[in-house]
Order: sequence, then C-alpha cells, then structure tokens
Amino acid sequence: MPILLQNGRVVTADSDGICDILVEGEQIVALGRHLPVPADTTVLDCTGKIVVPGGIDPHVHLEMPFMGTFSSDTYETGTRAALHGGTTTVIDFVLQKQGHSLRAALEEWQGRATGNAVGDYSFHLAVTDFNENTKAEIAEIVAEGITSFKAFMAYKGSLMIDDAQLIGLMQEVKKHGGLVTAHATNGDVIDSLIAQHRAAGQLAPLYHYLSQPEVTEAEASGRFADLANYAGTEAYIVHMTCEGALNQVRHATRRNQRVLAETCIQYLLLDASLYQHDFEGAKVVMSPPLREKKDQTALWAGLNQGLVQVVGTDHCPFLWEQKLAGKDDFSKIPNGHPAVEHRMELLFSEGVGDGKITLQRFVEVTSTNAAKIFGMFPRKGTISIGADADLVVIDPAKKHVISAATHHMNVDYSAYEGWEVTGKVETVLLRGQVAVAAGETKVAKGYGQFIKRSKTAF
Amino acid sequence: MPILLQNGRVVTADSDGICDILVEGEQIVALGRHLPVPADTTVLDCTGKIVVPGGIDPHVHLEMPFMGTFSSDTYETGTRAALHGGTTTVIDFVLQKQGHSLRAALEEWQGRATGNAVGDYSFHLAVTDFNENTKAEIAEIVAEGITSFKAFMAYKGSLMIDDAQLIGLMQEVKKHGGLVTAHATNGDVIDSLIAQHRAAGQLAPLYHYLSQPEVTEAEASGRFADLANYAGTEAYIVHMTCEGALNQVRHATRRNQRVLAETCIQYLLLDASLYQHDFEGAKVVMSPPLREKKDQTALWAGLNQGLVQVVGTDHCPFLWEQKLAGKDDFSKIPNGHPAVEHRMELLFSEGVGDGKITLQRFVEVTSTNAAKIFGMFPRKGTISIGADADLVVIDPAKKHVISAATHHMNVDYSAYEGWEVTGKVETVLLRGQVAVAAGETKVAKGYGQFIKRSKTAF
Amino acid sequence: MPILLQNGRVVTADSDGICDILVEGEQIVALGRHLPVPADTTVLDCTGKIVVPGGIDPHVHLEMPFMGTFSSDTYETGTRAALHGGTTTVIDFVLQKQGHSLRAALEEWQGRATGNAVGDYSFHLAVTDFNENTKAEIAEIVAEGITSFKAFMAYKGSLMIDDAQLIGLMQEVKKHGGLVTAHATNGDVIDSLIAQHRAAGQLAPLYHYLSQPEVTEAEASGRFADLANYAGTEAYIVHMTCEGALNQVRHATRRNQRVLAETCIQYLLLDASLYQHDFEGAKVVMSPPLREKKDQTALWAGLNQGLVQVVGTDHCPFLWEQKLAGKDDFSKIPNGHPAVEHRMELLFSEGVGDGKITLQRFVEVTSTNAAKIFGMFPRKGTISIGADADLVVIDPAKKHVISAATHHMNVDYSAYEGWEVTGKVETVLLRGQVAVAAGETKVAKGYGQFIKRSKTAF
Amino acid sequence: MPILLQNGRVVTADSDGICDILVEGEQIVALGRHLPVPADTTVLDCTGKIVVPGGIDPHVHLEMPFMGTFSSDTYETGTRAALHGGTTTVIDFVLQKQGHSLRAALEEWQGRATGNAVGDYSFHLAVTDFNENTKAEIAEIVAEGITSFKAFMAYKGSLMIDDAQLIGLMQEVKKHGGLVTAHATNGDVIDSLIAQHRAAGQLAPLYHYLSQPEVTEAEASGRFADLANYAGTEAYIVHMTCEGALNQVRHATRRNQRVLAETCIQYLLLDASLYQHDFEGAKVVMSPPLREKKDQTALWAGLNQGLVQVVGTDHCPFLWEQKLAGKDDFSKIPNGHPAVEHRMELLFSEGVGDGKITLQRFVEVTSTNAAKIFGMFPRKGTISIGADADLVVIDPAKKHVISAATHHMNVDYSAYEGWEVTGKVETVLLRGQVAVAAGETKVAKGYGQFIKRSKTAF
Repeated sequence: MPILLQNGRVVTADSDGICDILVEGEQIVALGRHLPVPADTTVLDCTGKIVVPGGIDPHVHLEMPFMGTFSSDTYETGTRAALHGGTTTVIDFVLQKQGHSLRAALEEWQGRATGNAVGDYSFHLAVTDFNENTKAEIAEIVAEGITSFKAFMAYKGSLMIDDAQLIGLMQEVKKHGGLVTAHATNGDVIDSLIAQHRAAGQLAPLYHYLSQPEVTEAEASGRFADLANYAGTEAYIVHMTCEGALNQVRHATRRNQRVLAETCIQYLLLDASLYQHDFEGAKVVMSPPLREKKDQTALWAGLNQGLVQVVGTDHCPFLWEQKLAGKDDFSKIPNGHPAVEHRMELLFSEGVGDGKITLQRFVEVTSTNAAKIFGMFPRKGTISIGADADLVVIDPAKKHVISAATHHMNVDYSAYEGWEVTGKVETVLLRGQVAVAAGETKVAKGYGQFIKRSKTAF
Repeated sequence: MPILLQNGRVVTADSDGICDILVEGEQIVALGRHLPVPADTTVLDCTGKIVVPGGIDPHVHLEMPFMGTFSSDTYETGTRAALHGGTTTVIDFVLQKQGHSLRAALEEWQGRATGNAVGDYSFHLAVTDFNENTKAEIAEIVAEGITSFKAFMAYKGSLMIDDAQLIGLMQEVKKHGGLVTAHATNGDVIDSLIAQHRAAGQLAPLYHYLSQPEVTEAEASGRFADLANYAGTEAYIVHMTCEGALNQVRHATRRNQRVLAETCIQYLLLDASLYQHDFEGAKVVMSPPLREKKDQTALWAGLNQGLVQVVGTDHCPFLWEQKLAGKDDFSKIPNGHPAVEHRMELLFSEGVGDGKITLQRFVEVTSTNAAKIFGMFPRKGTISIGADADLVVIDPAKKHVISAATHHMNVDYSAYEGWEVTGKVETVLLRGQVAVAAGETKVAKGYGQFIKRSKTAF
Repeated sequence: MPILLQNGRVVTADSDGICDILVEGEQIVALGRHLPVPADTTVLDCTGKIVVPGGIDPHVHLEMPFMGTFSSDTYETGTRAALHGGTTTVIDFVLQKQGHSLRAALEEWQGRATGNAVGDYSFHLAVTDFNENTKAEIAEIVAEGITSFKAFMAYKGSLMIDDAQLIGLMQEVKKHGGLVTAHATNGDVIDSLIAQHRAAGQLAPLYHYLSQPEVTEAEASGRFADLANYAGTEAYIVHMTCEGALNQVRHATRRNQRVLAETCIQYLLLDASLYQHDFEGAKVVMSPPLREKKDQTALWAGLNQGLVQVVGTDHCPFLWEQKLAGKDDFSKIPNGHPAVEHRMELLFSEGVGDGKITLQRFVEVTSTNAAKIFGMFPRKGTISIGADADLVVIDPAKKHVISAATHHMNVDYSAYEGWEVTGKVETVLLRGQVAVAAGETKVAKGYGQFIKRSKTAF
Repeated sequence: MPILLQNGRVVTADSDGICDILVEGEQIVALGRHLPVPADTTVLDCTGKIVVPGGIDPHVHLEMPFMGTFSSDTYETGTRAALHGGTTTVIDFVLQKQGHSLRAALEEWQGRATGNAVGDYSFHLAVTDFNENTKAEIAEIVAEGITSFKAFMAYKGSLMIDDAQLIGLMQEVKKHGGLVTAHATNGDVIDSLIAQHRAAGQLAPLYHYLSQPEVTEAEASGRFADLANYAGTEAYIVHMTCEGALNQVRHATRRNQRVLAETCIQYLLLDASLYQHDFEGAKVVMSPPLREKKDQTALWAGLNQGLVQVVGTDHCPFLWEQKLAGKDDFSKIPNGHPAVEHRMELLFSEGVGDGKITLQRFVEVTSTNAAKIFGMFPRKGTISIGADADLVVIDPAKKHVISAATHHMNVDYSAYEGWEVTGKVETVLLRGQVAVAAGETKVAKGYGQFIKRSKTAF
C-alpha cells in the first residue's frame, strides 16, 4: 500500500525544498510537488514538517556482554527506541571472544538479532584476537557484507589487541577492501591509572574520568593514524571525545592522509562536570569519558570542517542496578550510556536550532556520511528514487522534555532528564512501513533486517 | 513545454540511482521511476547516461580588462563554452578600479553581461581599494545579492590591497554576512622576484614560474587565514595550487577555524614541467603558476579530506596573439588560461574515471559545494524538486579528444590539445531549457541570467 | 695594574666552580685556584659571590629619535645604567631615515655614541628604505663590523619596509654573511586597529594593547621566517612576546630551518593586566605590548628548549612628561620601557632564584648566546683566557628593592618599582677596569668603545 | 706530577682561545697564557693543536648479553678504544633481567666493569620489568648516583615494558629527580614486520631495515613524549635516527615540553643504501637501522636548532663471526655497530670540517650537553678550574684513514673502512693522567672509575 508524504520540507545533505514523497513497497518511487495520489494510498500530511533520511547510528552495543553483565537494551528494545528517535538503522559491534573464532561471535550476535530487531541493523566485527585463524576468516566476513572491523586499543585481556595484531589486521582488511575502526585509547596507561587510583582508595566515579586523561585518547588516536598510514588503510576512529584526538586527525591531513572520525552526541553536549556529583556520575561512566568545554568546541568545529563525519552514540545502557555494581569502586561500574533514542532530536535542537550546524550538515552527520562510509549508500542515507523509504518526519517547532519516564530505551534514568528540546520526531518510516507514529510503534519485533554492506564510498 | 529525462543514472552529492526527471518551466518538478509522460513533453532518453547537476564554476574572468588588454571570452562566448562543458553557472569577478566606486565597476560588468550571457552568472566583487567610501557600499552590494568579496594580496598598484585594508574589508563584510575570498599570494615578494629576473635578463615564461615560488602562496594563505581568524570572518581561498597553501588551511583547523578552499582543474592535472618549452610555456602562464607533482597529490588528497571544497578554473583566456605581448618578457604575458569548457569532463575522466574521487565527490566539488558556499543552494547545485532544472547528461563511456579546433572558447590553443578524455557532456539543460544538445547551442545570447545570491550555508 | 678576583664561584655557560680570575690590561690572563698575586695587583675578594661574564643586551635604543622626541637615555646615561646592572655591552639600532643613506644614519649614531658611551656598544643597522642605493652600502657596512641588519615590519611611513624590500634585504645581507633581524609585527593591521580605536574614542593605554593582538606578531613572525627560509638567510626575531610568535619558530624547525629568537625581560615578568590602570599603563606602553600569563609560560619554556636564545630589553625609556604626550590618545604615547639596568638582576632573581632556569642558562641568555649570534665571541660572552675582562660579581643572597629613586637610568619611574629581588650586582669590570663598585661608577664617559663584530657563529 | 698543556687552542662550548692548561692531580688547576711551569711538570706542546674536553659517549653497550651472545668489547677493550678516540667517559646500560631485581643486574654490570675499565664509565639502568619490587629499588639506585633509567619500547619478551609500566616508571623516577630515557620504537609493529618478512622468505639484512620503517620510531617517540608530558617527567630519546622522530620532539615544543634527544654518529653519516650489499649489510644491522639522506639533513639541522643535544654511538660491536649467526635470517644477526672510537674524529671531520657545525657545537654535543643532562657537570664536559682534567688534544689538520686493521675496538671490520678523515686525536688525558699518546695507551686496565651522577641540570 503506497504512502504519500505530502507537502513536507524535504531535507537531505544536498537538497532542501517542499516536496511530496511517494513510497511504494520498501522504496521511494517518486518525488514531486502535488504528486497525484494513487489509489489506496495512505497520505501523511507533512505541511510544516521537515522530512529527513532515516538516521543511521553506526555505534551501538545491544545486549552486549560486558563486565560480567549485558547492556540492558536488547535488539528489540534498542532498535525500537532508536526508531522512536528517528534512527532507522544501527550498526552493532560483534565482539570476538579471545581464543575463539570470528564466526562464533558473529553467530552469537546473529542469534540475538535475528527475529528480534525492530529496526534495521548491521554489524561491525571487533577482532579481539588477530592471528592466523582469524586472519583467514576476514575475506569471508567481508563477502557476507560485514565490511568494517574494529580494533580495541584498550581493555587488555578481554578486547585489546596489541600493535602487532593491529598492523596485521589493517593489512588483511585492506586486502579485502574493508575499513578498520578503532577504539583509540591507550589501555595500558588507563589500566595503570585505574590501579593507582584504586590503590589510593580513590573509588568514586570521578576517578573513572581521571583514569582516562585526554592524553590516553590523543596518543592512541595518533598511533592508530600512524599505523593506518603505514598500512595504507582507510581508518575510522570511533567515539572521539577530545581536541587532542581531533588534532591527530588534523595533523594527519598534512601527510595527505584521511582519517575518518565519529563523535557521539554526549561528547558534544555533556561535560566532565557531571562526574562531580558523587555516585550520580555513574550515569555517565563511559569510555572514553566526557571531557571539557574546549573539547566540545573542537568537536563542533570538526563537524563543520568536515573532519568529523559522523555523530553516533556508543549506545550501551545499563540499568541503575547494574551501575550499582561499582558503588564502591568506579572500576566496576559498567561503562556505557543510553543515547540512541535522543541523538537526532538532541542534535537537531542543540545543533541546528542553536545555529551551530546547517540542516544539511545535520543530515550528513546523522545519516548520509555513515551510509557512505559504511557501504550502505545510496540505499540508505538519502531521500532519492530507489532508496529505502527510511524517512523521519520532524516537527521542528515542537518542544518536549526528555525523561526516563517516557523514553523507550530499557534503562531507568537519562543523562538528559528534564532537558527541553525543540523539534520532535513524529513519524518514522522504515523500508516503506510506518514504523512509528504519534508515539506508537507500528512495526513488530522481527521487522528489522540485517543490512549487507559494501565498501566505503566516501 | 515539459521535458522528461528518462531512465538516466541520476547522481548528486548524496544520491545515485536510475530515475526519470520531469522538468516544467524552469524547475525540476518530479523525480521517479517510469514517471508518466505529460502531453507535449519532450522526452530525452538518458539510458546509460549519467545525469548530474549543472556545474558551477565560481572563478571566471570574462572580457576582463587586464594588462592592457581583455580576456578573450566575452559573456557570450564564455558562458556558451561553459554550457558545452556542462557548467551552467559561472561567477565572475567585478574588479573595482582603484580610486573609483564599487558601484561603477559593478555597472561596468553588468553592462558587459546583461543581454549577452548565454548561461547563468553571478558576480563576486573584488575590492581593490578599501576605504570609507567603498566600506559604505558593501551593505548595499550584499543586499543586491552579491555576497562574496575578493581581496587581491598581489598586483600592487592595480588590484592589491594591503593588510590594513584587508582586515577592514573582513570586518565590514562580516557585519553583513558576506564571505571574503582572496587571491592569496605575496605580491610584494613576487614583484621583487620579477624585477630580479628581468634585471638578470631572465625573460622566458619559465621565469614567470620562478617568480612565484610556493612560499609566496603559502605565506599569503597563512596570513589570510590568520587575519580571517582574528576578524572572525568566513574565509575562502581561490585558486589554491600547492601543498604549502593547503597546509595553512590544515594548520588553521587546529584553532577550530574553517578556511574554505578552491583549486582549479589545471592545478590537479598540469604541472610546471610545461614551462620548460620555450615560449610555448606562455600558454600556461597564469597566477599562481602550475606547480609540482607533490602539489597535485596534496590537492587530490585535500578534495577527499573535505578541506578543498571546490574545483573551479580561473578561466581567463588570451589569444595567442595577446600572449605574444610577452614574447620578450614574461612579465608582459597576459596571465590566464582557458579551462571553463573542460573542467567537468577533465575531472570526470581523470578524477572519477581514474578512481581518485567518487561520483558524489565529483558533484560536490563541481557544483553542490559552490552552490552552498556562494548562497545559491538549494536553487542550484542539486537535482531536487523545486531546484532549477540545470542538468547535465554525460555519456560516461564516450571518449573524445580535446582540441582548440573544436572547443567553443574564444581562444586559439588549448593546454589539453590532443588529450583523450573518457566521458562526454551530451545534453545540458539550463533552467528548464535544453541549452546544449548534440554539440549545438540551443539557447540564445541573453538567455543567461544574473543569479542573486544569499549568504554562505555550508 | 692587574686585578685579581679571588675565590669567587665563576659561572659561565659551560662551567661552574670556585676559581680566581687574573686580569691584566683589558683581558683575562689566568684562571686558577689560589693564583699567585702579582705585585701591584688589586685584589677583589669574591668569596661567596658569583662571577659571570659581562652581560650583553643586544636590544637598546639610546637617544633614539621617535614619535617627535628622543628616548631619554643618552649613550652616557644608558650605558652607565647598563653597567650598574651588569650589562657591559649593548647593541643599539641605527635607524636609517627613509630617503637617506645608511651611512648618514650611521654617522648620526656614531656622533651620539663616540666619546659619550661609558660601556661598550655596537650597532645594528635598521634598513628602513631598501633600494639600489642602500643595497650598495651593505657590503661596506658589514666590512666595518656592523654585521646585523634590522627590518621593521611595522611603522609604515617611517620605519617599515614592505616584503619586496625585505626579501631584497635578506638576499643582499646573506651575500655578505650578515644576519637579518626583524621587528616582526604586522604594521598594517596594527595601523588599522589603532585607527578604529581612535575613531571609536577608545583612547586609553589599554587600546594600545588591544591594537596589537597576538595575531599581529604571530603572523609577521611566520612571514619573516617564511621569507628567510626562501632566501636561505639566518634570521633573528627581536623582542618576541608571545606563544603565537614562538610557535612560528617551532613550526619552522620542521623544515629544518633555524630562526633565532630574543625575548625581553619584561615579557617574561610583566603582563597585560598592567594596562588596566588608567593612564598608569602608559609606563608599559611599548611595542609589542605585554601579553598574557600563557605567553610568559611559553617564553620560559622557549628558553629551556633552546629556541629562545637571548633575553634583551628593548630598553627605550621616556620620561613621564614625554609619556604624557599621549594622555588623551594612546597612539601618541612614546613607545618604550626602561629595563637595561635591571635585566640581569631580574632574571637572576626570578629565573635562577625561582628555579626556572639554571645558572648556565642564565649566562647563555644574558651574554654568551648574544656574543655568538652577533659575532663578538669569544671576545665577549665568556670568562676565558684572552677574552675581554668583562666580569660581573653578583652577591647571590643580597636582597634589594628596585626603585626609580635609586636606579641610574634617566627616567622617573619604573615598572618594577618596589619589587624586591634577590641577588645584587656588586662589582663590574669592563675590559679590565673596575667600572662599577659599591654603587659607584668608576669609569668615565667615553670609556665605552665601539665593538666591531664578525659573522654569526652559533 | 703536574702536566702543562702549552699553547693549544682551547675550545669549549663557550670559549675558544690560545691558552695553557695546568693539570695537577686529577683536576685542572690553572688556565692562562704563558703559565709558569712548576717543577717536575710534564710539558705537552700543543701549538697548532685544538684542546677540547674529554668526550662523553652516553650510549654504549660493553660485553652486553644479547641475542645469545655478548657484544665483543669488554670494559677493557671498549673504554680503551673510546680513549683512543678522545672519549674519556662512557655510560653503559645495565639491563635488568625480567623477573629479577635491578640490583642483581647492577651487580652483574659492576662485576664486569670494576677493575677492568680503562676509561671512566657510568651506568644507566634499563628497567625491563617495572613492578612493585623494582619500583621500590629506584630511590636507592638514584642515591647511588645512577640517575637515569631506560625504557625499551621494543624487544617484547626480553627488554620491552608496556605503556602501563612505562608510565609507572616515569612517575617513580620523577619522584626521585631522575631522568627517563627510551629506546623509542614500536616493538610490536617491528615484530610483526619481521615475522612477515620471514614468512615470505625475505631474509637478507635489507629486511632488517624494512622491518623498522620510520613510522615505528616516529610513533614510539611521539608516544614516549606524550606520556612524559603527562607524567611531567624530563625525557630523553636515545639513538634518534629520523626526521619523523625528530618532528615529534619539535611538535612537543608547542605544548612547552622539552624532550631531549640523542642521535648517533652513524645516523649522521651513513645511510640505508648500505643494506643493498647482500650480507655485507650485516655490518650495519643495528636498531634502529640507518635511514635516508633526508633524515641526515634533519638530524644535522636538529643539532643546530638545539633540539638534538647529544651525539653518541650506541656502540655495540659484534665480531663478523657473531654477525654470521644471521647469515640465513636477518632476525638472527646480532644488532649493533662499533663506533665508540671514531665518534669524535668523524664528527670533527664531517661536521666541523665540513662547516656543518661550529667547534663550540662540536664540544657541546660530544661532551658538555651529556655532562649536564646526565648530572656529571661541571666535573665533566668542560675545561675549567676544578673540573676533571679530561682533555683531548686534536691535530686539526692531520689526515688519517679509518680501518679495522688499526682501530682498538675488538671487532674485525668497520663501517668506515677506508674513510679518510681530517683531524686526529693525538693525546688524551683522563683525570690528570696521560691516557693515550702517540697511539699508545698509557693507563692500565682498572684506571677507569665509576662516575656517580647527580640530577639533570640542563
């Protein structure tokens, strides 16, 4: 049954104008003013609304086993919450278990996702143990449409690979046209600082922050860029938080290298002052931690300079009860922060609304660039003929208040509790179906599909 | 009479797919697969073709008075040649005469353009004498849709303003939301080197090149960025040629500044070895001059890093007879190079064809970015509902040879003589009219209109 | 009559130990423990004292015509005051008058100095009008032992040369093995800001500071370095005040260039907060102006990094009555600051005493490096056999208070009024004569000699 | 018995002049022209000769256990050879054995040195296993006059510490005022490249070079600087070979950090083209390897910029027979190169003789700076009253040819075989004794003493 979005202001990374959108099946089939209305068409009046491409959040962790527990959003709750915020596709990280195969981990994640996802999803593969065996698996993984790999430069003993493995991974992934991404922080130094704080009885969430000073991220980001430059690999840094790390990307431009960068919505909007409030700070215990105002300034500049291409979330929620595991020791607080639902509204309100970025940039960094970088373009990331009808209708003037009481994520607090934002996601289409309307989820568990991805085309 | 472009691969900066385009009046009114064909519609079969937004060349000099003569393309011949190459809009530089008003210069240029242009055009205003009088004119000029201003940091005595004037210009233009662009070379040093070469009897075109070493451009680019940063102005460097200058832009990113940059097609493809051939080198005597291979490498990287946003031409042709004025003294060779016709085909062939940039990047740097930066977006620079139907149909596989014998520019040689390129502009629409088809110009002198521009939205 | 300095702690840039110094005639003739005492020897007991090489201040302006008046210290009063502070040699700037010859200026300065100087002196030659005539004078000037030249990049219309002249000067001076120094600030921008402040009725000394923002110095320092690099000239930046300028020197190291730098004592110790006190700020109206704390930090670091080689003063005093010329307009306040007398004591107290620099570094930056850079080494700048017996005996523990009431400079105020410093210059020898002892000047007007200089050997 | 060095040109880092030097006991007691000759004085006529402070080579490995063998110079042969080349003091690296104490290693090295050294020596302590036990040993080690520590960032499994240990070491050493030095190469990446080459059957010495590309050193140097900056420690990079690493030091200056750097004579004079000659290249298999011409240029510039303070050798000779262990596999070639004997003559000839550095710089980088940095100043590193009479008499004009046939190092080849150098070390005094004269060693095994060191004073 066709759907016609009538008379909205349709905004993409490179267009902006009043226009109807006709959706048939899963795709967009026509764009125009005053398009004729085929029989049986559902008409959505978008007058006064902004219609943008469905958001892509390339950094989420759903039901992730971590620190002895699991992140609290499942594929069902997580992708549903994402949809409510206008994010129609997420990319999750499959985490290899050291000593085991990539395949085993992939199957585990597939098991969690298949039949459960409400919104679309794809996988990055985090290689936590690069060796002759896992090396041999890369080609096949790429062939299956999982074209991006992740290296953890931190969490020794569970996720971290050393630089020998990293350079090997880069070389192998390059062979198959894939992309290497990194959690770029110096895990060894962090581990040392954590141990020092614990030894000194400094156990509050504040010490989580103080165990990951800017240098730990700046250094590792530079190292990752250096190795990628040597390997000749396309490189992407996930969840960049600080000026020091961004400056490494800037510095690398001088040798004609391009290092892609993703920040997350929280690093643009929140800062480390939140760690001052006793155990309340646990809500924003994530890695890397929140930074300073000067870092926010740098990241906003990076977006407009074109050097930070993506705003994701690193969505990885834990219930307050789970967070309490670190009540007496910050190092036991599960690291993570719920954000997937509010990324687009927050960026719209604080970024576009506040004049920090244009609407086109908003679309680029929430959707188009991720689609290009992660090989989903032009199927995703744009509003054009033949593209998936992933569409988000925003009421640009509508104010509303963020609250754990009303959000859809499976977590019982929000770092944005009480924030009033301007601009509300009202209706969301995913592959031609109304997925969210008037606050209701309209598609069922299992509607979300795995998106096979191609190589980077950015 | 509507026009339907059927079944082409429609490519914009953020989309790519098979699609029909329906044009009515001057605009695009519908996009879709298998669009119904209204009565009286001209159908253009675009099967197997690529359709991109009309090119924008923001750097041309038509009928420009310079060095005692005029550049040899008039508004008629220049914009017509541009159309043949897929460039539907050009931005020319109005040059204030020192001691006279901006208005007088603007009227002079309007006189040349009005009724003569075949393609669309706009103006930048080059302020060559910033003082209390010209300062007072800025607001009105901006209000008339001329929102970009140019400072020459070279050509003392005719075009150059000193840094006192430059900072003043920046401050005033900023007040009115305009953009300051610069010819960023150190004119004083160049003048000194020219004088030294002349005194030493070094008079061949090669010495034109040697009088403008990289440092003269790198230094001035850095100075321009420094002053813009102090003034808080959006800044744009025209015709960037070299790594040294690009590195200034890169360096400026570290202070969270954005300096926009334009290179020209010749700086990506030609190099200084052309100055070795006796007086033949006069054909590529332009300012700044061609550079080295390492500079080409840097500029290509700059495009992909997002730090060079625009590929223009600095089109400023002179007949061979005019060039001969400098037969015995390079400093008398009129500076300039014909390129407006071949910019898009060359970049398509050497950039996209050679795998250096994606098709999306191609559209961005030939059209979309210029539209955004120079305030013509979303009217120009994209293929979307309500946008001007400026459309370029490219046969991506068609090989052809560039030659002065066949080009449309009013100049009797070409630096690309004999180059075979792959990809040919076949049909061009401008504001809904077929402007070029099968090598014929289909619109008359006077069809081209002045495009009033808004502020930068990039 | 020989002089024996007995039992002092003799400190040079590369030595440190208890030792006697025997002086005969103008030179040091022996160093040793318990040296035999020749007949008729004056013995100075230096037990508990530190003996360092006579200070060299390579940046003073004595009786300089400027802004319609003259700096208030003559060769007599200025060099005498210098001696009291342990500075035995100064280098003054001969200022060419635009339109006149270098020779004429040199003769004017020689006229002021000859027979009047109490301490030793030399000249830099400031070329304010580089043309074929002045170019022809350079060789001879160098041959006369004036091997360093100065370019003013500010003060258009009186002292400034443009970049064409600057590059020409660099090329010519290089030919003769000389050194080019620069007052590196962007005069054009400063002139513009001064005019803006005056037009806005912002006339207090604070606006002097605000008319010379960091960028004006950083930009010009970078430009100077760029041009020197192109010319292949050894370059030296005088009176560096800020991090931005120092960063240009640091940046230049990456292209294997060495740019020498001098800061002045006031830029290490005073900051721009002094401009807040109404017209009191006139006391520290100098160009460039005082900066921020972060600039002091950078300059101290620069000294220890070896990238700032010299601490001078830019001594250029004006009586309060002279400063009053700018009572109603900061731009009429004569620029300059008295410092020659206290440079060494201040640096000893605040630098060595405070642990910021070693004693060896203290000697390097107050004496040895200037001697090497300006071609007076090994005659000056060290304590070694055959060197001039320019010796300064410091009581390291003696506290005293700086005051205009007690200083020897011909100026009726001091920016350091009331500062208590630790370490007092007690006895000073100049070329084998006791020049200062117990607060008394022991040599007469005319004792000071012109020091012919060689090329840089650093 | 006193010794008088008569009429030499005595050159230190800050002096230069004809002068006699009187030596009594172990020290210099008088300096002067025409010093009286005490009874029983041995007079050395130094007319026409240059006398400089005894060289300090802060980077040697004597009888070092490595790769299953020992470096071929013992304390006896190594320090004797050093003396013949004018190096009177060496600093060797005590290598902790992982799992054992620092003390055990120190005792092992003391056992090798005591009674065997001919020249003076000191130790750095290489901490290869930083843990609570070794941490507890640091204070005492410093108290014993071993104030510098070394971290290996390469050689995993034998010498390397990870970044957690490194930051811990920095923090602890800082507490006690010591200095942290590093072998700054990314061992993990190198190990990976070695493994790759071996797997590919690429086994010639050339692959040693290709396994340690510039990035491995540049990256680690940057990382070391980053961590030292965070820890607030004084840092020193040993055996810097390349522009990339030097640029890290230069870059660090921008944050007001000082990172000290040592290069070695071979990196200034030899380049990687030597790896082209089959197994001959084994002679210059060392880590890091020789680099390119551009790196030599950068290092020479670094010396004159004051950013590379020391020229050492990393003397670590292996007999040809030992090198043959890697005949079929580059990774088994013992890494090391004999150079301690020729460092000063080579630098004198190629550096001073060729006009690349001044004589003062020569003394600085071969002796004075090392003395200051490593806490031996003013006892060592200078020619002044009370300093150790470590004196080197050089015949500046004497040409001679370097050859394994004539050198004193215990190794049967030389990378400089057949090089003619200008300037010969003729006589060497160590602590007041003639140690070398006319090619003969004049002091016996055991004459060399351990030099207890203080903190850095640079």
